[in-house]
Amino acid sequence: MRIGIFDSGFGGLSIMRAIVKYLPQHDYIYLGDTARTPYGTRSREMVYHFSRQAVTFLFAQNCDVVIFACNTASAEALDYLQSEYVKMHQRRILFGVIQPTAMEAIQQTKNGSIGVLATEGTVRSMAFVHALEGRDSNVHVTQNACPLFVPLVENGEDNEDILRYYAKKYTKPLLDSGVDTIILGCTHYEFLAPIIQDVVGSDITLICEGPVVAQQFARQLHGARSLDKVTDLEGSRTFYTTDCPVKFVQQGQLFYGTVIDAKKVVIDD
Amino acid sequence: MRIGIFDSGFGGLSIMRAIVKYLPQHDYIYLGDTARTPYGTRSREMVYHFSRQAVTFLFAQNCDVVIFACNTASAEALDYLQSEYVKMHQRRILFGVIQPTAMEAIQQTKNGSIGVLATEGTVRSMAFVHALEGRDSNVHVTQNACPLFVPLVENGEDNEDILRYYAKKYTKPLLDSGVDTIILGCTHYEFLAPIIQDVVGSDITLICEGPVVAQQFARQLHGARSLDKVTDLEGSRTFYTTDCPVKFVQQGQLFYGTVIDAKKVVIDD
Repeated sequence: MRIGIFDSGFGGLSIMRAIVKYLPQHDYIYLGDTARTPYGTRSREMVYHFSRQAVTFLFAQNCDVVIFACNTASAEALDYLQSEYVKMHQRRILFGVIQPTAMEAIQQTKNGSIGVLATEGTVRSMAFVHALEGRDSNVHVTQNACPLFVPLVENGEDNEDILRYYAKKYTKPLLDSGVDTIILGCTHYEFLAPIIQDVVGSDITLICEGPVVAQQFARQLHGARSLDKVTDLEGSRTFYTTDCPVKFVQQGQLFYGTVIDAKKVVIDD
Repeated sequence: MRIGIFDSGFGGLSIMRAIVKYLPQHDYIYLGDTARTPYGTRSREMVYHFSRQAVTFLFAQNCDVVIFACNTASAEALDYLQSEYVKMHQRRILFGVIQPTAMEAIQQTKNGSIGVLATEGTVRSMAFVHALEGRDSNVHVTQNACPLFVPLVENGEDNEDILRYYAKKYTKPLLDSGVDTIILGCTHYEFLAPIIQDVVGSDITLICEGPVVAQQFARQLHGARSLDKVTDLEGSRTFYTTDCPVKFVQQGQLFYGTVIDAKKVVIDD
């Protein structure tokens, strides 16, 4: 099977890393739209337009399914694209990160109060709110945009006072609402999970998307046993980027964990 | 005369504001490529590709001259585009921000040691280094990239400790080199000028691009008298953005100083 994974930049590599752990036997094609990252600050219209180009490219590479590893794209474009394909009578399987993460948060919460930290675009879309409340109408959601988290992670900020300041600032409205579970609704935020956990305290459950999305995708594809029995077979891994591969390869290693090779591709023709 | 002003986003509006002050009688068309901002983190190839589309759009609107208000685009694309137009025997007047700013810094420095704070792209291009050393071979240049400055400004960060921390961190290598003059080589940095000045001390001269570029452009267009005698005539001002105008109008006001109206345009066809 050929699995396409799409993200606005590097962040989705951590999702891919988690998926490949459970399902190594498949062929993977990753596309990072680094020429136009970040998506989180753009309008819905633009996120849809860029996502459409990315998905079209991945299906043209004969992918059987495309995973939206980008929260903003999952939130702002996935549903629209899915219904467009239905209208055109095209069978296209899209898998996003919002629904699996929402499902996990509902399983984890005890008091029904769930917090969401995400980009400006994801927050504005209300996608997590709709996904959570749509599954359980008793759930109460508080969300907050964290615009400095992505630049802090991408620039490898290691000043703990600064990271702690922003973790406190961004989680405050969530804690004030009495949440017991917080979704880290952007692939980059996983890197700040230890600091965020320390700031909010050990009573709060943090939901990191990588393992959650990976488990649910594996379950959907091959049933529950796929989580226990990992095959020895290993498929191919191909990485595409819309900007220069040099930076992608450098940053990509941080998110993917091992050295990767990438090719440049043009998708905005 | 119709003057095109191009920037990757909103920052160039502060350059336009300074130019319009001296030369209100002309018609101005501003283009902010907000769908793909920021340019400072992209490869030279991508900055060139995006800049070419922007400039093509502005000349198609019958602009007589196009000002690159974006440092990264001035550094990475202006010279290439200029020589391409020459090859095609097309008369196209392009005006960037690097050369005028370099000229001013050389006039200001007393000890010949000049610092440059800019984006990753501008620093990597060495454009300021070449412009400064090309004008005066005795000058010594120290530059440093400031990746957090743009997100801090765009998110209206007002925590003085944080701003002071980054101002200290980014200026330290410059001060260690003994610079007496620092170029703020990105339109956003002007907003941090008071904090930066406070951190480096009053003996260091900061060069803000807005007034410098405006004065040199006005001088080049109409001679020195254009700076003394501002006409009462006022031309038209048109603002284009490649993403949703709503955010452009909100953020744009901060950089331009007054309320603006913007239209969306597609330039990546």
